[in-house]
Order: sequence, then C-alpha cells, then structure tokens
Amino acid sequence: MKSEFEFINNLKSRFSLAHVGDDCAVLLKDDKTDLLVTADLLIEDIDFRLEWTTPEFLGHKALAVSLSDIAAMGGTPKWALMSIGVPKDLWKTDFLDLFYDGWHELAENHGVDLVGGDISRSPDRLVIDSMVGGEVEHGRALLRSGAKPGDSIFVTGYIGGAAAGLALLESGHNFSDKISASVRHLLFRQLQPIPQITTGKLLQTYGLPTAMCDLSDGLSSDISHLIAASAVGAQIYAERLPIDPAIEGANKASPVSLDLALNGGEDLELLFTTGKEKRSVALDLGFHEIGEITSNKGVVELVCQESVERLEPRGYSHF
Amino acid sequence: MKSEFEFINNLKSRFSLAHVGDDCAVLLKDDKTDLLVTADLLIEDIDFRLEWTTPEFLGHKALAVSLSDIAAMGGTPKWALMSIGVPKDLWKTDFLDLFYDGWHELAENHGVDLVGGDISRSPDRLVIDSMVGGEVEHGRALLRSGAKPGDSIFVTGYIGGAAAGLALLESGHNFSDKISASVRHLLFRQLQPIPQITTGKLLQTYGLPTAMCDLSDGLSSDISHLIAASAVGAQIYAERLPIDPAIEGANKASPVSLDLALNGGEDLELLFTTGKEKRSVALDLGFHEIGEITSNKGVVELVCQESVERLEPRGYSHF
Repeated sequence: MKSEFEFINNLKSRFSLAHVGDDCAVLLKDDKTDLLVTADLLIEDIDFRLEWTTPEFLGHKALAVSLSDIAAMGGTPKWALMSIGVPKDLWKTDFLDLFYDGWHELAENHGVDLVGGDISRSPDRLVIDSMVGGEVEHGRALLRSGAKPGDSIFVTGYIGGAAAGLALLESGHNFSDKISASVRHLLFRQLQPIPQITTGKLLQTYGLPTAMCDLSDGLSSDISHLIAASAVGAQIYAERLPIDPAIEGANKASPVSLDLALNGGEDLELLFTTGKEKRSVALDLGFHEIGEITSNKGVVELVCQESVERLEPRGYSHF
Repeated sequence: MKSEFEFINNLKSRFSLAHVGDDCAVLLKDDKTDLLVTADLLIEDIDFRLEWTTPEFLGHKALAVSLSDIAAMGGTPKWALMSIGVPKDLWKTDFLDLFYDGWHELAENHGVDLVGGDISRSPDRLVIDSMVGGEVEHGRALLRSGAKPGDSIFVTGYIGGAAAGLALLESGHNFSDKISASVRHLLFRQLQPIPQITTGKLLQTYGLPTAMCDLSDGLSSDISHLIAASAVGAQIYAERLPIDPAIEGANKASPVSLDLALNGGEDLELLFTTGKEKRSVALDLGFHEIGEITSNKGVVELVCQESVERLEPRGYSHF
C-alpha cells in the first residue's frame, strides 16, 4: 500500500505543485518578506487519545506542531486558523473552553493571533486542523533541499523523549503523585511539546543551516525526507545521538532507547545541516552533531561501534 | 445548548479576536494589498454522504465553499491548503485521485495553487479541511458590517436550489437517466455549487456593496449575521425572493419553496446591501432586490402579502 509520502509526491508531479513538500509552503508576501503557511490535521484515536491527555495539553499540542513547522523554516509565526469537528457530547462540556485556554497560552507566548477557522459537528471523534501563517525574510526560508556532501548533521536537543512518553501512556502511566521526575518529564515531552521557534530564528539569523526540518515523524524518516529533497545521502553516528537522558538506558544506547531516538517522532526538535566553515559555531551553540551528509544519494547509513548498516525510514507513517 | 455562533462570539470576547467573524480574516499583505484567509471543515455523515456524491463532486465542493468565502469579500483566490483524513479502506481505492481531479479542475479555473496541507489516517469517516488564501485591494474587502438603514438588500442569483437538491438526495434521487432537467439542475446545485468569484470581484470593483456575505447557512441565518455585524435590522419581501425556478411550486412561493429559499443553505450566491444611490446599478446588473435594511436593530422581518412577521434564523446550525 502506498504511503502518504508517495501519494503526495504523485500529486506533486500530476499537478506540478511547486510549493508542496517542505515543512511550510513559501509564498511571496512583499518585496522583503515571504509568507509561510502550514496545516496539521489531528484526529482522535489516530493522533491522540482523549483519555491520555487534557483539553489544555491538546490545545497546546495542536498549535505546537504547526509552530514547529514555522520554526523549521526559520520563520516567525504571526496568525492561525483553527478548524475543529466536535462530537455533541463533548460540545456540551467545558472541553472546548479549556482546549482554547491551552491553545491561547502558547499562542500568546509567540504573539500569534487566532484569525479564523471553522467549527463543525463530528459524529463521534474530535478532529482538529491547525493552520499557522508566518513570515521570514524574502528568499531566506530554510528549506530541506540545501544539504551538500560533507555538511555536518545536527539536532537542536534531546530526542526520543516524546515517543518514550507515548509508550508510558500506552502502558498506563499518568500524572499521578507517584511518578518519578523522569516519567513526568517524558509525559510532558509527549503531551506538551515545545516548538523551537526561538532556536529556528537564531539559526536563520546566523545563517547556519544549509537545510533544515523539524523532527515530527522520527529521525530516520525526517532525515530521509531531507536527503531526498537535497539529492544526497547521510551517515548517522549511533553513539552521538542525544538520547533523552530521562529514558531508561539512554546513556548505554540500548536497543530500546536507540529505537526511540531513531524512529520515535514528535520531539519537535530541529534537524539541520551546516557546512564545514560553520560547524564549530553550531558546536559552540551547544547543538548535537549526529552525522555527516554523503554523496551516497538516497541512502542513510547508521554507524555503530564496529558496523555500518543501512537505516530505513521507520518513523511514523499513516498508511 | 449554545450554537457554534454563540461559542465563536464568546471566544472572540474572551481572547479579543479582532479578525474573527467575517467570511474571511483580513490581514495586511503589503501597502497595496490585503490577504484574505478562510477555512471550511467538511465531515462525512455531517456535511456530506459518500453514497450521495462522487469523489470529483466532493473535491469540487470542498474547494467551492472556501472560494465562496473569498468571493464574499470581493477578493481573488490565490492559493489553497487541503487537509484530509482518510479511512484505510478508502485510501486503498482511487478515491483520492478522483477527489483531487475534481478539486483541481475548479482550482485551475480560478488560478488557485495547491501549496500544502496534511494527510492523516481517520478511523472510519472522511474528514476534509479546505483553506484558501486570497487577495483584495488594501482596505477594500467587503465586510458584513457596513449596512446602513435604508440600504437595499440584494442576492446575486436564485436561492433554495441547493437545499432542494439535498431533499431530493434524501428521498433517494440520483443521476439516473430518468430524472428531469429540473431534478438534475437541483442535484448539481447541491453537489457542485458554483462560487461567485467573478460576481464578487465585479461588485467590489463597482463599489456597490455596503456589506456582503455568502449564502452558505441559509438566508434567514446569513442575513441575521450581517445585520448583527452592522448593528441594524432588515425587512425581507417574501414575494421578491428569487426562488430557484427548478423547485416545484417556486412561482407560487408555496410554504415548502419559501422555506427552502429562507432556510436552505449552500447556494453560494452572494447577499449584499447597497445604498440608495447605487440601487439602480444593482438592478441594471440583474441582481435580485429582496428587502431593505432598517434601524430595527437585531430584528429581521418577513413581509408577506398582508402580514409582517419576525423571521428567526433557521438556517443550518451544527449544534
């Protein structure tokens, strides 16, 4: 069965869609500014479960995933549309008020205005489509397509935590009094992820990245999209992956924690490449170097202690 | 139970949302141009039924409802995002290919580019969120809020046809060989409505409307939103309503056809008001005068042959 990525690529070629395929579409706003737009659809029981989260967390996360797309282009978010399909029993409660409280708190932190959207009834499941518009200096949006062989690959923060948080929810954990600080941290990584707006803008201002995207599907998938767009390959050094220290066994790079870091999504950290001349700046800024771009087009290799193996995209796919 | 309109008004006041409430949000694009953005959420078994339509019609309609919002501001549509949640069994078929064929045909007619969106799996029902961005001369978007007492109220075309088409679908009609031209016309009005982009731009260029919106929820509801935004009242002349001639009994303004014209939505015609000095221009252009704006704030009256009764909003409401 075709994946959604294959479907989108097919659609792009059928209709010559020039703007589709990066974290955001980049459109001309005026002589000095480009407009960035992005949409993220979240459907109950596919993308979230109401029993594992709170309305406020869900409102936060619905906006956070779209802000992360703006961050991945080095942009500044400006406005948002929110479409929401609500089952009748949920409509009768204060769910939506609390949802918008969570949404608004994050929006206010980033100066984002809610300008519109739509409300529909839904037969039985909550449906959320979050759209954000942002801005970036004309011609300066950070695309996935600029990576060159020899560039270093960086991530902005710890990874695997959001997926570890999801596994904890799946195994029945919640915010009770008895959980450890580590478990609490991982649940927050899953339920209330932080979009890297400030970091994305800093990277854009410094002109560091040759290519960039956010870590939403999982590193193995996100790097494969980046190298496809750049027509290059990549080597990832397993031992240098900044596995979230709250994950049990993170410091030993156990198979489980390695899997979470490589294939778990939703951390909303940024993945970027940078040329040799700016590598030391990226290191000085505290970013984590995890590999190197190669000329081995379309191939991602995972370098472990004594072996090199091919890394297939095993991050999240809807189909 | 509160309606979605009450919920949105509450949200507007809680978070001081200045841009919410018209057919589109109006944002500054550059010195000469305003950006218009709108979103429309369509959920299977609430907003459409797959057994009553075709993938191509549905793709057309998903875009048409958003284009109609741009038309209602007197704008020109430019780009679109499409988010779609698809059940697995539908994903395996050619449904989405045909859906995008229908979408693209209408988009191409209006020079609209698909620039992004999102695809998610949905547990069991198709979910579509259509977002369109457009442009209008700075400060010249046609809002709902400019109607003044004494203004004439116009609609751009026949009304009630889309609702009559829905009633036909509900009673088992479809595009078989045996249907009459009238039934065929009404089914098309429901399944493949035409957004009034050209008419909206013409009205904007002539500077005719003092206020405008599209007829999507139904005249009784749409006029109530317009008078609320303008802080005025309205009188509607029942006998002047341009009831779709394909509706049985339309020429006699029967109770059934009157109900369809007043409370049936989705015709995607435009409803506008114009001052006395331009009334004759609107008449010359062939638009239908259906009433007059009054100073009776918040009240819509329906003037029949020998009676004046209060017209309550009975158009479509999700809750």
